[in-house]
Amino acid sequence: MNNTKDKYAIIVAGGSGKRMGSNTPKQFIEIAKAPILMHSINKFTKADKTIKIILVLPENQHNYWNKLIIKYNFKTKHTLVNGGEERFHSVLNGLKHIRKDSFVAIHDGVRPLVSTNTINNCFKAVINNKAVIPVIPVIESIRKKEGNTNFAVNRDNYVTVQTPQVFDSNIILNAYEQAFNSTFTDDASVVEQLGHKIHLIEGNIENIKITQPIDLKIAELFLKNSII
Amino acid sequence: MNNTKDKYAIIVAGGSGKRMGSNTPKQFIEIAKAPILMHSINKFTKADKTIKIILVLPENQHNYWNKLIIKYNFKTKHTLVNGGEERFHSVLNGLKHIRKDSFVAIHDGVRPLVSTNTINNCFKAVINNKAVIPVIPVIESIRKKEGNTNFAVNRDNYVTVQTPQVFDSNIILNAYEQAFNSTFTDDASVVEQLGHKIHLIEGNIENIKITQPIDLKIAELFLKNSII
Repeated sequence: MNNTKDKYAIIVAGGSGKRMGSNTPKQFIEIAKAPILMHSINKFTKADKTIKIILVLPENQHNYWNKLIIKYNFKTKHTLVNGGEERFHSVLNGLKHIRKDSFVAIHDGVRPLVSTNTINNCFKAVINNKAVIPVIPVIESIRKKEGNTNFAVNRDNYVTVQTPQVFDSNIILNAYEQAFNSTFTDDASVVEQLGHKIHLIEGNIENIKITQPIDLKIAELFLKNSII
Repeated sequence: MNNTKDKYAIIVAGGSGKRMGSNTPKQFIEIAKAPILMHSINKFTKADKTIKIILVLPENQHNYWNKLIIKYNFKTKHTLVNGGEERFHSVLNGLKHIRKDSFVAIHDGVRPLVSTNTINNCFKAVINNKAVIPVIPVIESIRKKEGNTNFAVNRDNYVTVQTPQVFDSNIILNAYEQAFNSTFTDDASVVEQLGHKIHLIEGNIENIKITQPIDLKIAELFLKNSII
């Protein structure tokens, strides 16, 4: 057991803002006095100041990001990396900047409500479990669609997946040598393709992915009230 | 096609408040100037003033409810009915108060954020489809647990189920003649057991079931801002 390995957080943001009905990509929208992405990044350094941040952004957003850094006097050290065509390629670009024999968290830039507990629990669990993701129960009833029919399924058999998804570097580097496949919906599914077991830990329910205008209002509520 | 049938809404509330960390059952908690349950009930009469309301509450909460009616000067006409041991039995008690050859909406008392559109769309769709439920996409990635393992599933094949679940009275009365079964997670699953097809329509994403303290804050935000 070696828990003194380097720790990285690859923060991936590629949103264009279309689904938000906004011209500003959602990761740059200001809530509670700072762009969403800055909240997300700072959660990691707040959880553990030794975590090295790698930020993956589409190349055409780098200038804008650099202006935001000045505007908001953002001091958190990070390495800025170009995004790729799909999220998969963005993560791949981020992985080029990590040392071997480390632990790597991969996090959605638009999840500013992750708790420092969730982050630290993932990094603790990865020491023995190699591939760790935070999940929460599926709270509402769900149904499965099949063809033109649908049927009730037992929600207790399902969990909702969050990020950060945290891996032993050897596993994640190996997994990302695979060719891109559209069934790769998250990093766990890429790792799983190689036969690795995914270890689930409890996430925090506030850790929503900001995708719609309604989520912005919820996120702002939580951040303003310091619920996270 | 007969769209002049009577319409009912059976509003079911049986919560004890335990999960909210509160002594007040969650349906009675005040948000945006009224108990949650009053918001829920009023959504139906706002959607269509001809809808007859049947409220199912545990017998030991009837006194408290009657006090709230006075305190909040709540004028919406409704029939108050005793709850049962499980939700199934509560709905069964409510169904005793409907006329045959009608349409029946069954709604969680702790879903005050249902939109009048969702309600009206359900009642429109039930004319031709007999059993209608509002659903929204599963927005976050989900995984399925099986034994001590788990794997990614395609969330596009799943939907999140809401209420009101709206039925032709003949079908729902017939379905509730079955003996209680623990696989009955909602009214659709009771109806489905008899081989009826469930018709899905689009719900409204704000229509969360208030089960945890965090949901209260979200609901209050929406109601205060008149988002619904």
